[in-house]
Amino acid sequence: MPSVASAETPSSSPPHARARRPVRDALDEGFELDPAFIEDVQAALRANDHEQARLLVEDLHYADMADLLERLDSEDRRLLIEAIRDDFQADVLPELDAEVRYEVMDALGFEDFAVALTELDSDDAVYVAGKLDPEERAKILERTPPDKREFIEQGLAYAEDSAGRLMQRELVAVPYYWTVGETIDFLRSTRNIPDKFYVVFVVDARHRPQGVVELHRVLTSKRPIRMQDLINPDMDIIPTDMDREEVAFLFRQRDLAAAPVVDKSGRLIGQITIDDIVDVIDEEAGADILKMAGVSEVDQSSLYTAVIATAQSRFTWLALNLITAFMASYVVGMFTASIEKLAALAVLMPIVAGMGGNAGTQTLATVVRALATRELDSSNALRVVGKELFVGLINGVLFAALVGAVASFWFSDVLLGVVIAAAMLTNLTVAGLAGILIPLALDKAGTDPASSAGVFLTTVTDIVGFFTFLGLATWVLL
Amino acid sequence: MPSVASAETPSSSPPHARARRPVRDALDEGFELDPAFIEDVQAALRANDHEQARLLVEDLHYADMADLLERLDSEDRRLLIEAIRDDFQADVLPELDAEVRYEVMDALGFEDFAVALTELDSDDAVYVAGKLDPEERAKILERTPPDKREFIEQGLAYAEDSAGRLMQRELVAVPYYWTVGETIDFLRSTRNIPDKFYVVFVVDARHRPQGVVELHRVLTSKRPIRMQDLINPDMDIIPTDMDREEVAFLFRQRDLAAAPVVDKSGRLIGQITIDDIVDVIDEEAGADILKMAGVSEVDQSSLYTAVIATAQSRFTWLALNLITAFMASYVVGMFTASIEKLAALAVLMPIVAGMGGNAGTQTLATVVRALATRELDSSNALRVVGKELFVGLINGVLFAALVGAVASFWFSDVLLGVVIAAAMLTNLTVAGLAGILIPLALDKAGTDPASSAGVFLTTVTDIVGFFTFLGLATWVLL
Repeated sequence: MPSVASAETPSSSPPHARARRPVRDALDEGFELDPAFIEDVQAALRANDHEQARLLVEDLHYADMADLLERLDSEDRRLLIEAIRDDFQADVLPELDAEVRYEVMDALGFEDFAVALTELDSDDAVYVAGKLDPEERAKILERTPPDKREFIEQGLAYAEDSAGRLMQRELVAVPYYWTVGETIDFLRSTRNIPDKFYVVFVVDARHRPQGVVELHRVLTSKRPIRMQDLINPDMDIIPTDMDREEVAFLFRQRDLAAAPVVDKSGRLIGQITIDDIVDVIDEEAGADILKMAGVSEVDQSSLYTAVIATAQSRFTWLALNLITAFMASYVVGMFTASIEKLAALAVLMPIVAGMGGNAGTQTLATVVRALATRELDSSNALRVVGKELFVGLINGVLFAALVGAVASFWFSDVLLGVVIAAAMLTNLTVAGLAGILIPLALDKAGTDPASSAGVFLTTVTDIVGFFTFLGLATWVLL
Repeated sequence: MPSVASAETPSSSPPHARARRPVRDALDEGFELDPAFIEDVQAALRANDHEQARLLVEDLHYADMADLLERLDSEDRRLLIEAIRDDFQADVLPELDAEVRYEVMDALGFEDFAVALTELDSDDAVYVAGKLDPEERAKILERTPPDKREFIEQGLAYAEDSAGRLMQRELVAVPYYWTVGETIDFLRSTRNIPDKFYVVFVVDARHRPQGVVELHRVLTSKRPIRMQDLINPDMDIIPTDMDREEVAFLFRQRDLAAAPVVDKSGRLIGQITIDDIVDVIDEEAGADILKMAGVSEVDQSSLYTAVIATAQSRFTWLALNLITAFMASYVVGMFTASIEKLAALAVLMPIVAGMGGNAGTQTLATVVRALATRELDSSNALRVVGKELFVGLINGVLFAALVGAVASFWFSDVLLGVVIAAAMLTNLTVAGLAGILIPLALDKAGTDPASSAGVFLTTVTDIVGFFTFLGLATWVLL
């Protein structure tokens, strides 16, 4: 650790070193809320001991407080809000699940909720306001000071997944001709500084960003050095209408700490910081899992979504799957005469269709992920298609042999084994191809491959599986 | 934007404002490599025009250079490395896919590769070294300077997914009794400072972390203020053996920029920064998608994994699914007599099983995601189980009615419709329960629910679906 300042210090412990710490007892070793702690809070609330409840939670970090509010039931939640109303931390609000936030709003009342909203950074305030119903939002905004209200309304005017929604208005910008010394003096003397910032933006006379200076560069440079000599040459300027997934890609790709957001005339109007991007990346990657399983946006929001809303949101995907299931059944229905003659066909047919579905899903997940991380695009698509075709063929041959052998023994019918082997090989090869071509086609068409490829894929593998197996059997065996 | 320094500046454009910019022509508007640019590079390489190739790529950001190397075929890649050997950016290495990195190593040779490794931050060097085969790694480390080699070997001694592997050794730490002024003077005068840092650590005489001071707090405070008065009270100390998913959770939960890593005696030995966490979050969330689809760790690595290795890595999951498929077939086999009498059963049975699988997967994905984000734990599990049971029941009733009606019409048999409706209701309810209980049980058992729950789930929904439908039909209809 060469850069550690030489620690030639008295060997006693520092006198004032023990800073106020959060109540560690509330958390288990994995930094999650301890169930025993939650029970203590519940007990205090139910005994109507507001003071005890307040003391228990007063040192909680806002994210832990949000978790606690989510874990309590509605009645306890209301009681806890009552207990902490006077020192309610605004930062809890963006961390809450939407349904729980509504209950907190009801408990706080519009006045106190508006106060909390005003205390938030503009990006968090826009986020919270954006999750409210228009009617409630209007009531809250009425009670918000005009300058803050304007920022929120401007933020809400940008599209939901745009950089404009994500940006915060609070930032530090200095003229291009300033020195490090002038910048530090300005930062020390100005009251109206953001709570937290990672970079200083350098702007020209028209307030257009000229560069980004990371704080460590300011701190390691001598006072007379000019800020514009410290700017990182790789500045990436973000327009307000850039999609947030693009923004996240850019941050990952370039290891950015913060980036300037500009309006149409190129003026610096906000910044996006890496801590916002962490949330975007987590949400987007998590959303793909849910979309692939047919869980819609509404349901994704949380565990706390009501039963009816959840059932409703899942209905569409299941209904879509039902249609394709009937299509597959129709194919089976074409061969009822064969099945009546040889019921073994009905016994074995789910294996052919199911294995195709599984193999195809493996490819599909790989491709969806590669599209999301932008590893896959038109420059290497053909190569990957070729690869998946081969992988499908190889596993097709192996599983054809395996299933063929088992079926031959089970039904003492070698020809049946040959038929299922041929169907298996066909379906696994088709599955590999469908697993890549379907998401590529959807992506090309501008549709999200994560949310619709699965249903197309299983339609293909079911229909091809049933048709080749039952068709071949009818032709060869009967 | 209240915190912007007053920009009363001459209205002309700043004279030196145009800093060197990366070659924007290489990238499309989504900040990805332009296919036309890749073709230009290929053309230059194939014409053996090293100088032209070097000029084309010399301003590329290292992440874009890594993308370019991945997109080229092996021969072009070797040629490009030859062209840029003298100004090869070490930062390209951690960005590369493992297979491509091996080829780059072959092209660079052990000497130059070792030089590049030495230039990297310790966390990146450990990461790259950790991805090499032990034999190659030994050859590279032989050629690395002793101090760097020691850091790398120490890093590799920590478990693969631990904080120790993730941390970087380079950091800035100052004694607790220093002032802001002393800290700034130290930072300005010391040569051996990390390339990039977000915080200054405050340590006691035994080098144990006393607190974290974010750089903006140093910059906005006057010189006589003591560093220990600026520390963030919510310091979270990370032991080297903490799992990286836990670390990521902590960073998200507390909005940290950097956190201290300590050894067993509590001494500060490294730091983890938010840009490392971005990669962890992206990888972990992405890995869950792949694991749920049965794509193993090996295969996850990339699109560039060879065909045989990919086929092999997917084989296990397919084989496991084959066993459960045969189990389901065995259940169907119990009812061959019924199917011979009424082939409509074979036509309809895939619908019952398949819809159960789909509904169960919806619940499963929601639960796997909630476990990953720690929204779900023992304190609210029971509530969520109850909810999923209800959701399953509601959709069960709806789809029972729908499928029952269609089946009645299709086969002009009302009783058949009633049978499939009853089987559908049963299977969707079971699917909802299995979709939550299986991942919860796996999680409790310390197994990763994302990577094994799916196969258990479809086993349940297939067997229950076939058994209830065929069993009821045999009992009621025949």
